[in-house]
Amino acid sequence: MSRVLIRNVDVLIVPEQGECRVDEAQDIHVQDDRIVAITPTAIAPDAGQPPTAIAPDAGEPEVVDGSGLLAVPGLINSHTHSPMVMMRGAAEDLAIEDWFNRRIWPMEVNLTPERVRVGARLACAEMLLAGVTTFVDHYFHAVEIAAAAIESGIRADLAPTFFSSADSAGQDAIDAAFETTRDLSTRHPRITTSLGPHATYTVTDGDLRRTADLARADGRRIHLHAAETDDQTQASLDKHGVTPIQVLERTGVLEAGALIAHGCGIREEDLPILERYADRTTVACCPKVYLKLAMGEVTPIKGLLETGVDVGIGTDGAAVHNTLDVWEAIRMVALTQKQREHNAEWMTVDDTLRLATRGSAAAAGLKDQVGVLEPGRQADIALVDLTAPHNQPIHDPRAALVYSVRASDVVTVLVAGQIVVRDRQLTTMDLTEVLADAKSLAHTLVDLSKGGAVQHYAP
Amino acid sequence: MSRVLIRNVDVLIVPEQGECRVDEAQDIHVQDDRIVAITPTAIAPDAGQPPTAIAPDAGEPEVVDGSGLLAVPGLINSHTHSPMVMMRGAAEDLAIEDWFNRRIWPMEVNLTPERVRVGARLACAEMLLAGVTTFVDHYFHAVEIAAAAIESGIRADLAPTFFSSADSAGQDAIDAAFETTRDLSTRHPRITTSLGPHATYTVTDGDLRRTADLARADGRRIHLHAAETDDQTQASLDKHGVTPIQVLERTGVLEAGALIAHGCGIREEDLPILERYADRTTVACCPKVYLKLAMGEVTPIKGLLETGVDVGIGTDGAAVHNTLDVWEAIRMVALTQKQREHNAEWMTVDDTLRLATRGSAAAAGLKDQVGVLEPGRQADIALVDLTAPHNQPIHDPRAALVYSVRASDVVTVLVAGQIVVRDRQLTTMDLTEVLADAKSLAHTLVDLSKGGAVQHYAP
Repeated sequence: MSRVLIRNVDVLIVPEQGECRVDEAQDIHVQDDRIVAITPTAIAPDAGQPPTAIAPDAGEPEVVDGSGLLAVPGLINSHTHSPMVMMRGAAEDLAIEDWFNRRIWPMEVNLTPERVRVGARLACAEMLLAGVTTFVDHYFHAVEIAAAAIESGIRADLAPTFFSSADSAGQDAIDAAFETTRDLSTRHPRITTSLGPHATYTVTDGDLRRTADLARADGRRIHLHAAETDDQTQASLDKHGVTPIQVLERTGVLEAGALIAHGCGIREEDLPILERYADRTTVACCPKVYLKLAMGEVTPIKGLLETGVDVGIGTDGAAVHNTLDVWEAIRMVALTQKQREHNAEWMTVDDTLRLATRGSAAAAGLKDQVGVLEPGRQADIALVDLTAPHNQPIHDPRAALVYSVRASDVVTVLVAGQIVVRDRQLTTMDLTEVLADAKSLAHTLVDLSKGGAVQHYAP
Repeated sequence: MSRVLIRNVDVLIVPEQGECRVDEAQDIHVQDDRIVAITPTAIAPDAGQPPTAIAPDAGEPEVVDGSGLLAVPGLINSHTHSPMVMMRGAAEDLAIEDWFNRRIWPMEVNLTPERVRVGARLACAEMLLAGVTTFVDHYFHAVEIAAAAIESGIRADLAPTFFSSADSAGQDAIDAAFETTRDLSTRHPRITTSLGPHATYTVTDGDLRRTADLARADGRRIHLHAAETDDQTQASLDKHGVTPIQVLERTGVLEAGALIAHGCGIREEDLPILERYADRTTVACCPKVYLKLAMGEVTPIKGLLETGVDVGIGTDGAAVHNTLDVWEAIRMVALTQKQREHNAEWMTVDDTLRLATRGSAAAAGLKDQVGVLEPGRQADIALVDLTAPHNQPIHDPRAALVYSVRASDVVTVLVAGQIVVRDRQLTTMDLTEVLADAKSLAHTLVDLSKGGAVQHYAP
C-alpha cells in the first residue's frame, strides 16, 4: 500500500454546475491509486491523525509540499494521435486535402512498431510534463502506444485504428484491430480501449455496423472522426443523402456509444439525433486545428451541450496541432467559442474549466474515475505554480488557468497516485534517451521516397 | 566600449520577401548597442581574429555560449498598455461595452504614478523573460513607464495617452500629455515617443488636428485606436457619415504618420486611403483580444499588406489579453488569418515571422533599428532553446517558432547589447521585489468603491 500526502495546497473545485472555486490550504490524502480525503491543512504539521479513510496499516506517506501551488485535476487530452509528434512541423501551410494526400497519409506508409513506440514515448513525456494525465488516442500499432503509456505512468484510452478496404487483407487488418482492442483492455489498470474506425468517410457502413455490434457485445465505446468539417457533411449529403451523424445512427454506432472527434460539421438537424443518445455520446473539440486548416467551422459546443452531450477538449495530432499542450487547447476553446457565438459572455472561465475536466473525463470514458479532485476518484493531479510574472497579480485563479497559465507552470504531476513528474522532471523515463530516439528516427517518418499512401482523402 | 560574443548559435534570417532560413553555427559579434558582425563559428575557439568591424580597443568580449540555441530578433510587442497587468483576470467574460464601462474605465479612476510604475515594472519583467525586447505602449503616467523601461533594460516607444474633454482641465491634460511626449523622447536612447490620442471616438476632430499638427512639427508619429470593430465603423458612419479611417485622413493624422491599433473595422473602401499614406502607416494586430471580446472581425491583414501598409503583432493590455506573451500573439495571428481568409496556405510561417519581426519593427517606428539580425542593427536578440519535448523532433524550426514554442523556451535576452536575461533570470531587476510590489497594490487598482470612470464607451 502506498501513500502520498500533498500538504498545504490550494485545490480547484469544479462543480457540475455553477462557479468553480479554489479551496485554500488543503491536504490531499492519496492511498494507492485514489484520493481518499481532502482536509484543511492542520496548522501544526502533526496536529491531527490521518483521516479515518486511510487504512491503519498504510504506513507513512510520501509528503509533497504544495505550498504556493494550485492542485487541478490532471488534464485530459480527449482526442489525439500521439505518435504523430514524429511529424511535428512537417506539414505546414496546407489545405486539408493536401495535408492528408500530399503529406500525412503518404508519410504513414513509413509507420513501424518501433517508430510508433518512439513517438508515443515522446508524446507521453510532453504530455506528463504539461500536467496531462490521460490521453485518448486513435492510432495504428496501439500495442506500442500502450507500452509507452504503461512505462511513462500516464493513463490512456486507446483505439486501434482501421480503414475499410475491399480486399481480404483489409478485413484481416480490421480483425487485428479488434483483437488488439480486446487484448489491450486487460493489460494494465491505466489502459482502457475503444474501437477505432477511422471515419465515416473511410470506413464502410458495413464495417461500421460490425464495429457497433462488437462494441455493444463487449461494452466498449467507438472513437472515430465524423463530420469533421461542414464540407464533409455536405459531401455525405450529396453522395449518400445522409449526414455523417445520420450514418452513425443507422449503423448503430450511436447506440453503442461514441466519442466523435471534431464534429465541426454537425448541423442543427443532427442535434435531435445526438440528443437521443446523449447519455453515451461525447464530442472532442480541438480548435487550434480548425483554424490552422481553415476548416471554416468549429465544434458547435453550445448546441451539443443543450442536447446533453458531453464535450471534451483535445489537441488532435501534433502533425497539425504542433503540440500536445492541452492548456493551449483549453484556451482556444474559450476564445473560439466566444467568437463562434458572437458572445463574450458565453464559454465563461467556469464553463471552460468544466469542459476541460468533467467534459474531457466523459470523453475519455472515465466520467466517474478522473477529472475531479474528490475522495474516491483516481489520484490524477497536477500542481501548478501561478507565481511567475505572466500570471501575476492573481485577481482570479480560474482566469489564470484559462487565459495566462503556461504548460511550463506545471511543477508536479501524479497519475493513479504515482508521482510521475517531480519539480518539472519526469520520474519514470529517461528524457534524454526519449529525445535522442525521436531525433534519430524523425527523418524516417517523413520520407516520401517510397510512394504510396495509407489512404486517400476524398470524403 | 562593451562587447558580447554569442558563440556557435543558429540564427534566424527573415528576408524582406520569400522564405526564412536558419544559418547554423554562427558567431554574433556585439559592440556597445549594435550587432557588428555575424560570422561562421570557427572550429577552434581562438581560431580567428575578431572581425575587422570590431574596434581594436574594444577589449575582450563577454562570451555567451549559444550552442544548441536559436537566435531570433528580440520580439516586439507592437501595441500594449503595459501597466494594465495590474488588472489581469479582473474583467472576464464581458462584452466590450461592459468591459469598458463596468470594469476598466471605472478601475482607471484608481491610477496613480506609483501604481503605474509597479505595473510597468511587472510588465517589463514578464516581457523580457519571454524574449520581448521592445514594447509600443499607450497609457497614462508614461513618465513612470519610461522609468520602468529604463531600469529593466527593455526598449519602448511610449505614447502618453489622452481623451478629449469639454472643460479646460481636459485641455490641460492634453497639453501635459504633449509635454510628456516631448520630454521623454530625449531621456534615454532606448526610449522613443509617439503622440497618444486614445481613439477616434474619444478624441474630437479638433484635438486630432492639433495632434497631427504637433506630430508633423516634431517629426513624431501618432499611436491611437481606430476602427477597432466594425460596429465602431458603422457607428461612425451613422453619426458622422465617415469611417474612422476617413476621420484620420481629414484630421491630418494619416499625413503625419500613424500606428493604428486593431483596425478590425477597416473596410474595403478605406484601403485606397491607407494606400496613399502606406509609407508612414502601420497597423497592430492583437487577435486573442478580438476573439475574447467576440468582436466579430480580426484585422484585415491581407488587404492592408496589399496596400503596402506594414502590420505588426501585439498583445494589447493584459486586462483583456491576460498575458504580454508575444509568442502567443504571433501564433494567434497565423491561426486567425488562415481562418479569416478561409485559406490554410495563407499567412505561412514565413509571412508570420516577417510580420513578427520586420512588421512589428515598423509598427514600433524602428524599421531600420530592430527586428532583424544583421550588422548595423541594434543588438536586440533572444536565444531560444528548442530542445524540450514539445518542440521535438524539429522538422522545421520556423514552424516551431510559430506553432509550438513557449515563452518559457527563451533562455537569454539582449537589448541594445546588454544581457538583460541570463539563463532565464532577469539581470536588471529584483523579480521578487517586483512581484511583491504588484501583489501588495493589486487590490487598489480594481477597487470600484469610489465610483466614476475616466471615460464612457459609446463609440
